Amino acid sequence: VLFRSAAADDAVDALIAEASQSRLAYEIVESLTTEVGPRLAGTEAEARARDWAVAELTRLGFDDVRVEEYTMPVWERGPLEVEILSPYPQRLVATALGGSASTPAGGVEGELAYFASFADLQAAPASGLEGKIVYVDDSMTRTQTGEGYGPAVAKRGSAWSEAQERGAVAVIIRSVGTDSHRVPHTGGMRFTDTRPGIAAVAVSAPDADQLRRIAARGETMRVRVASTTSWRDEGVSGNVIAEVRGREAPDEIVLIGAHLDSWDLGTGAIDDGSGVAIVVAAAKLIADMPQPPRRTVRVVLFGAEEVGIFGAKAYATAHEDELSDHIIAAESDFGADRIWRLRSRVGSGALDEMDALAMTVAGLGVVRGGNGAGGAPDVTPLAEAGVPILEPDQNGWDYFDLHHTPDDTFDKIDPEALAQNVAVYAALIYQIANGDVDFRAEAVAEDE
Amino acid sequence: VLFRSAAADDAVDALIAEASQSRLAYEIVESLTTEVGPRLAGTEAEARARDWAVAELTRLGFDDVRVEEYTMPVWERGPLEVEILSPYPQRLVATALGGSASTPAGGVEGELAYFASFADLQAAPASGLEGKIVYVDDSMTRTQTGEGYGPAVAKRGSAWSEAQERGAVAVIIRSVGTDSHRVPHTGGMRFTDTRPGIAAVAVSAPDADQLRRIAARGETMRVRVASTTSWRDEGVSGNVIAEVRGREAPDEIVLIGAHLDSWDLGTGAIDDGSGVAIVVAAAKLIADMPQPPRRTVRVVLFGAEEVGIFGAKAYATAHEDELSDHIIAAESDFGADRIWRLRSRVGSGALDEMDALAMTVAGLGVVRGGNGAGGAPDVTPLAEAGVPILEPDQNGWDYFDLHHTPDDTFDKIDPEALAQNVAVYAALIYQIANGDVDFRAEAVAEDE
Repeated sequence: VLFRSAAADDAVDALIAEASQSRLAYEIVESLTTEVGPRLAGTEAEARARDWAVAELTRLGFDDVRVEEYTMPVWERGPLEVEILSPYPQRLVATALGGSASTPAGGVEGELAYFASFADLQAAPASGLEGKIVYVDDSMTRTQTGEGYGPAVAKRGSAWSEAQERGAVAVIIRSVGTDSHRVPHTGGMRFTDTRPGIAAVAVSAPDADQLRRIAARGETMRVRVASTTSWRDEGVSGNVIAEVRGREAPDEIVLIGAHLDSWDLGTGAIDDGSGVAIVVAAAKLIADMPQPPRRTVRVVLFGAEEVGIFGAKAYATAHEDELSDHIIAAESDFGADRIWRLRSRVGSGALDEMDALAMTVAGLGVVRGGNGAGGAPDVTPLAEAGVPILEPDQNGWDYFDLHHTPDDTFDKIDPEALAQNVAVYAALIYQIANGDVDFRAEAVAEDE
Repeated sequence: VLFRSAAADDAVDALIAEASQSRLAYEIVESLTTEVGPRLAGTEAEARARDWAVAELTRLGFDDVRVEEYTMPVWERGPLEVEILSPYPQRLVATALGGSASTPAGGVEGELAYFASFADLQAAPASGLEGKIVYVDDSMTRTQTGEGYGPAVAKRGSAWSEAQERGAVAVIIRSVGTDSHRVPHTGGMRFTDTRPGIAAVAVSAPDADQLRRIAARGETMRVRVASTTSWRDEGVSGNVIAEVRGREAPDEIVLIGAHLDSWDLGTGAIDDGSGVAIVVAAAKLIADMPQPPRRTVRVVLFGAEEVGIFGAKAYATAHEDELSDHIIAAESDFGADRIWRLRSRVGSGALDEMDALAMTVAGLGVVRGGNGAGGAPDVTPLAEAGVPILEPDQNGWDYFDLHHTPDDTFDKIDPEALAQNVAVYAALIYQIANGDVDFRAEAVAEDE
């Protein structure tokens, strides 16, 4: 098969060896988190991140480094206070959820309506919460795959609307996360045209435990939430794009991406500075090979992922005409831990090729997963347009300890794990870009 | 010897068995951290903690439960903002140090003067820092014994005066701690008559790393500190005292203590809710024995330890006349992990007895340490007055991950480790209280 010649094997082995001992990704994420830090979508900080990216990609010698701008609504947080007023007065550590409304000046006070789960809130009567502050508990299950996130994040998305419809004046949730530190997890709320009309905040796990213990005593709690947030309708964001131009089929695009924006609480080290570093370093190692691959490797650093994949949608729209030339797409957006599995979503005619490809990174500790990959968020618009998906799965066991918290900082990254990611990406992307397999062939995805 | 009769051994064994499976201490610290929470010295919250303690000690059936009040100056924190203005604008996670001054309205801005260590700051010229904001780095060494704390805490105590003398307008330190989470460590500053005249704050370890990385680039940094703090001269605090009255020599006092106040950021679970729980539970188990011990076991829950051992000093003054009847004193104030060593400071004539006593808890994993114990902070005034000291050393390996941070919360306590502490205290204190050894005999302390 295409991937299995002695010369090709030697090239891949050399690439893996080089990547495994490269510090480039570690240096890139150090630079981004130190020199830019937090970079909320649509803000001046995200613009500085684009400037950083253009400078970095140019310095590294990529082809055709460019920014593709778009506009989007921008939400920002202001001061926040959350406290128990009675029976046991104390401040809680909390953060506003993305998209949440301000409280009236001075905040809102009310009896806390405790719901052990989001399902309980959904099942509550249509009235009865007037003037109250809803609290939704619900712990998240720690998993390697990240499958605990879906069930846990439902409350973050929609508890506001369930509470608001029933007359509540604010909503508090237990942070969507797996740690037990005094750091809250922010994140976006789910809405379409109508923005949330009430304040919505997440408290840290120890604070959530506190509310749970008081509720378990059968005590009536009064709480206060004072939150100031703001919307700006026309913020500027953008995707930063760079390429390793293909030597024979430059119009055929192998896309690897990550997102450049981050939540504002941490410095976006594992979400998603590490992804930026992994794909940029992998592409740079490919660019430095004796000759460029047949096809073009395109690096896309998406803007505004956290607040609604605005960059990904803008990319899919702007590149609609060439999506049929996208051979495959992969995004690294699940932290900085090692890749343990390779999933895909390719045509059944290319499955044998994908299985063979997976074998080339087996020595890096990667097992072959199924063909039902959905891809990380920024490649979902591409997947919906029929672009095949490559999904190297990172170990997510610890990811939600840090995800969307102030604690997402550079010190959490293990340089050896990061280098393993680079080696996996470089090896896979090089082989795909240097080959001519059509991964869309008989594009019938097999469910996992 | 006194401690070694078959009947006494059986009683001690039964007490250890009972304590090791008791949940009482865990319930006590759950109650204190949930129903009171943070309890800064001299505040209304500390008063609520005294009310809680009186109710709890009374409920448990102790003798002569009482509060001994005193007044003290009270420092409180207000809003704080610390940020890098240039070259890489970003907010830092910080907390004001206890005793620090407010900045002028709007805060102070200045060039950051980076000192890799407190020794470097101490060695700096007498001028040259005018208008600057001093930063002192210095990491803390993780140890089981806590011996990393002394060297690390010097900057927290005195960096303000070194900086202020040289004309600096504020001082920032790396948190005194061993974790790498986005939680800052507060703590008291060192001063006597003259209160600090500048703002002093600690940044979390990841933020300190950030400053270190930028400094390593050789970049000039401008930072801003805006801190509001306040002093109140005549706050009320108090010690809460309860006893298990001795059956034969009630005037002879075996004192076990802990401190009831906490810093305001966390809920004071390991500092020092766990200590409160350990000594109260140990005394309760002794009270529940078939007959009370010969001597009186006195439980003292000291107020205002964190801000200058005001409660300990008030106790030593108020009880000056009976200090000669204090047989020995011990304070539990080093977290909630297991006791691994027993140190003491007793007269040389009682060393054999102390060695024999230590053997009775060897089965709980406790090794015999030296006779140079200084005691935890609240028993130091007693030690200075000649009271013998018993110091069961807790494993401090993880203690400074949480110490003085928002993260000092109930979820961090392991109930089995807590029960081990109770078993050690109960066994040791019961034997001392039920015996007649004079631990002051030939009171020449041996250095460790």
